[in-house]
Amino acid sequence: MADIGLVGLGTMGAALALNIAERGYDIAVHNRTVEKIGQFVDSAGELASRLTAAETPEALVASLSAPRSVILMVPAGAAVDATIDQLIPLLDKGDTLVDAGNADFNDTRRREAALAERGLNFIGMGVSGGEDGARHGPSIMVGGPEKSYAAIREIVEAIAADYQGSPCAAWLGPDGAGHFVKTVHNGIEYADMQMIAEVYGLLRDGEGKTPAETAPLFERWNEGKLRSYLIEITAEVLRAQDKTSGGPLLDVIRDSAGQKGTGRWTVIEALKLGQSASAIESAVAARSWSSMGEARAAGESRFGAAEKGTLSLDDGELEQALLAARIIAYGQGLALLQSASEHFDWSLDLGRVAEIWRAGCIIRSDLLDDISQAAREGLPHGLLTLAPAFADRMETAVPALRRVVLEGLRAGLPMPAMSSALAWFDTMRQSRGSADLIQGQRDFFGRHGFERTDNGLSDQHGPWAD
Amino acid sequence: MADIGLVGLGTMGAALALNIAERGYDIAVHNRTVEKIGQFVDSAGELASRLTAAETPEALVASLSAPRSVILMVPAGAAVDATIDQLIPLLDKGDTLVDAGNADFNDTRRREAALAERGLNFIGMGVSGGEDGARHGPSIMVGGPEKSYAAIREIVEAIAADYQGSPCAAWLGPDGAGHFVKTVHNGIEYADMQMIAEVYGLLRDGEGKTPAETAPLFERWNEGKLRSYLIEITAEVLRAQDKTSGGPLLDVIRDSAGQKGTGRWTVIEALKLGQSASAIESAVAARSWSSMGEARAAGESRFGAAEKGTLSLDDGELEQALLAARIIAYGQGLALLQSASEHFDWSLDLGRVAEIWRAGCIIRSDLLDDISQAAREGLPHGLLTLAPAFADRMETAVPALRRVVLEGLRAGLPMPAMSSALAWFDTMRQSRGSADLIQGQRDFFGRHGFERTDNGLSDQHGPWAD
Repeated sequence: MADIGLVGLGTMGAALALNIAERGYDIAVHNRTVEKIGQFVDSAGELASRLTAAETPEALVASLSAPRSVILMVPAGAAVDATIDQLIPLLDKGDTLVDAGNADFNDTRRREAALAERGLNFIGMGVSGGEDGARHGPSIMVGGPEKSYAAIREIVEAIAADYQGSPCAAWLGPDGAGHFVKTVHNGIEYADMQMIAEVYGLLRDGEGKTPAETAPLFERWNEGKLRSYLIEITAEVLRAQDKTSGGPLLDVIRDSAGQKGTGRWTVIEALKLGQSASAIESAVAARSWSSMGEARAAGESRFGAAEKGTLSLDDGELEQALLAARIIAYGQGLALLQSASEHFDWSLDLGRVAEIWRAGCIIRSDLLDDISQAAREGLPHGLLTLAPAFADRMETAVPALRRVVLEGLRAGLPMPAMSSALAWFDTMRQSRGSADLIQGQRDFFGRHGFERTDNGLSDQHGPWAD
Repeated sequence: MADIGLVGLGTMGAALALNIAERGYDIAVHNRTVEKIGQFVDSAGELASRLTAAETPEALVASLSAPRSVILMVPAGAAVDATIDQLIPLLDKGDTLVDAGNADFNDTRRREAALAERGLNFIGMGVSGGEDGARHGPSIMVGGPEKSYAAIREIVEAIAADYQGSPCAAWLGPDGAGHFVKTVHNGIEYADMQMIAEVYGLLRDGEGKTPAETAPLFERWNEGKLRSYLIEITAEVLRAQDKTSGGPLLDVIRDSAGQKGTGRWTVIEALKLGQSASAIESAVAARSWSSMGEARAAGESRFGAAEKGTLSLDDGELEQALLAARIIAYGQGLALLQSASEHFDWSLDLGRVAEIWRAGCIIRSDLLDDISQAAREGLPHGLLTLAPAFADRMETAVPALRRVVLEGLRAGLPMPAMSSALAWFDTMRQSRGSADLIQGQRDFFGRHGFERTDNGLSDQHGPWAD
């Protein structure tokens, strides 16, 4: 009998199945398109002995030792519901379904509640690290009934990335907590990628550098405070040559970025919670604008291009600028997690979240070890930027961010995420903002009332209400 | 028999009822708290003869001539559903319910479909203009079954604001179209208010001006290209004195801006449609940050306040900057309307929308007449900024916006909405952006594939996939 089952042999599912087999567990695999099952097992080499090909859901379930656990790695949305519906009649009370895809956590909450009524456990498990992570060690964010995690914990910890001896996997909270944390992880990923792309844009258009000329900078940064997976692979992407053209690969890639939903979901959930993760918002915005190539070309013909090759930025200053913006993006993500945790009563341990992001996942970076410590000590007013170790960094890094944004803006180069990170910082260090005017306007036209600063009375009105 | 009924005698409902009565229509009014009905009629002066006090929903319906029309002006959400449920059994096929509150258009779509099954008409009607508008002439955005508009059209046009002889009211499309347009109107309102507040912040903190010293500037601007209701009332709010302190009213108003949902909804719906209305997003963000006064104070003690009184901005340049930012916000709103119209198959006439915003509503401004013309001529690539009359304005105004944002950023003063408007503009006039790097990264870690610029092939991969 197999230790665990898996449905869905796409890129991520296949990689995860091989990872599980390689760790010494027997795994039964099923896929809707049946031919793929045999092909997968045939191509698994010496791991094939750990794999059981199950051509039907019935065969899959029949091949599992009880209590059964089945991982679903099918496209988020209707396919997950369809697979669950297929499996429910085949399972017994106490069995566990694990959705390891990028589900909307609202769906996970709904599914968990529905399956609990039937005595089945449902776990929403965020898996980050791309194909390579899934194959050799991802970061795994688990949500669902705490007791049901025991059924899969050994396997999950075995396949997860390792950070200095501890697995980057954890049960984080009930129902949708794991998928929510994964969603916010992806939101931070969007922001970090966008900010890196903005710096690349400054170097390319502002300084007139080729991708290959830019790569060494990212390689150097990857030895310093910015050390992280995304900086590392940026250098590789910058260095990549295109076989067809013989030139830089980036010069033949259409500047139109795809998105699959998690970035957008992060922003929508933030808004629903009355939060605003502006660096993530801007990154999502930039992706949607990137798809409007014709409109952008029309804009350039009408208004002219930005100045090209007129900038000369200091490398160290660029590094600090990116660091400041990155800290702000992480901090906005953490604040959102805290807000959701309170709203959904999840008791999320932000320190633990940061710990399991230290290896395996796309946003892994050296910063996360310090973030984890800062979160354990408690973030002042919920803000990472106010934690002592990070406030010190910000003091040095924000002036650099400001100078870089000023230079880029002067040249007319777009930096939506970095400038919105800076706008957030400037807003959050201003004890008296200018929303008094907005409250005055709202009271003027809608009698919405305002609070007085001198005596704290609320629902006060201006003279126009007399 | 009364011509029309109204449920909900709050600020807006009472004002609307008096407006209807004053235009010569008999109106039956009901309110859940019954005492309010008599008080309202008693205080209506000579209009009382047009009012019928209905102490129960039954009495309300019984007092209406058939086919009946009842306006609901109750708080958005559950109260609307409860009121509808009360009225349904009392109504006959062909009767019409009109929700004139700030409903989420998704609710309006649901309600319209449910009532249609019972043979009842449901109209979602956005009413803008605050209390004063509702009393003397609001802008009215109607959505629902086109034929059912005939039942209320005469009254709606009679009570609406007048713009050079034509009423600022129109049927805009089926089901939720009216409420959606109203939501986006409010989103633009958020952006415009925030950008005005940012300029006020520059003047107050950057130039060290008192509110009263600033008021003349807005009064002058209200005679020029920025002429609009919001600029007009800003001057009044800036001039207002507080009776208790004897000082400027703004100096005793807490800088914490409330929000009721429509701004947030605008941003959420934009995201769902794959759009990004960044100026509106930033304004919603700024309101949520404004409520974090303690965190902002902690930020100021840790990082220091922005430079005070060091700026000296040119008044004409500030005016142009605000104009550019305003045009961008209107344009983002229109693009969102166009996108929703295509998605929901509403066939929205953007020119007509702009026309009925020319008077009565909060965002009324001189620009809207030109916007209406530009929309009728067709917006190039869906962008207002590319319409000839507006592209000319942007050519002059954007450099001013850039200089103002640069000055404010250098001083450390927050301008989230103006800087994100500028980031949008710079993005949308760059034919080649930097999202090629994002696509390279995504392909590197997730094999997401990219499109090649040289031969248009999609689903291509970098050398790492070999």
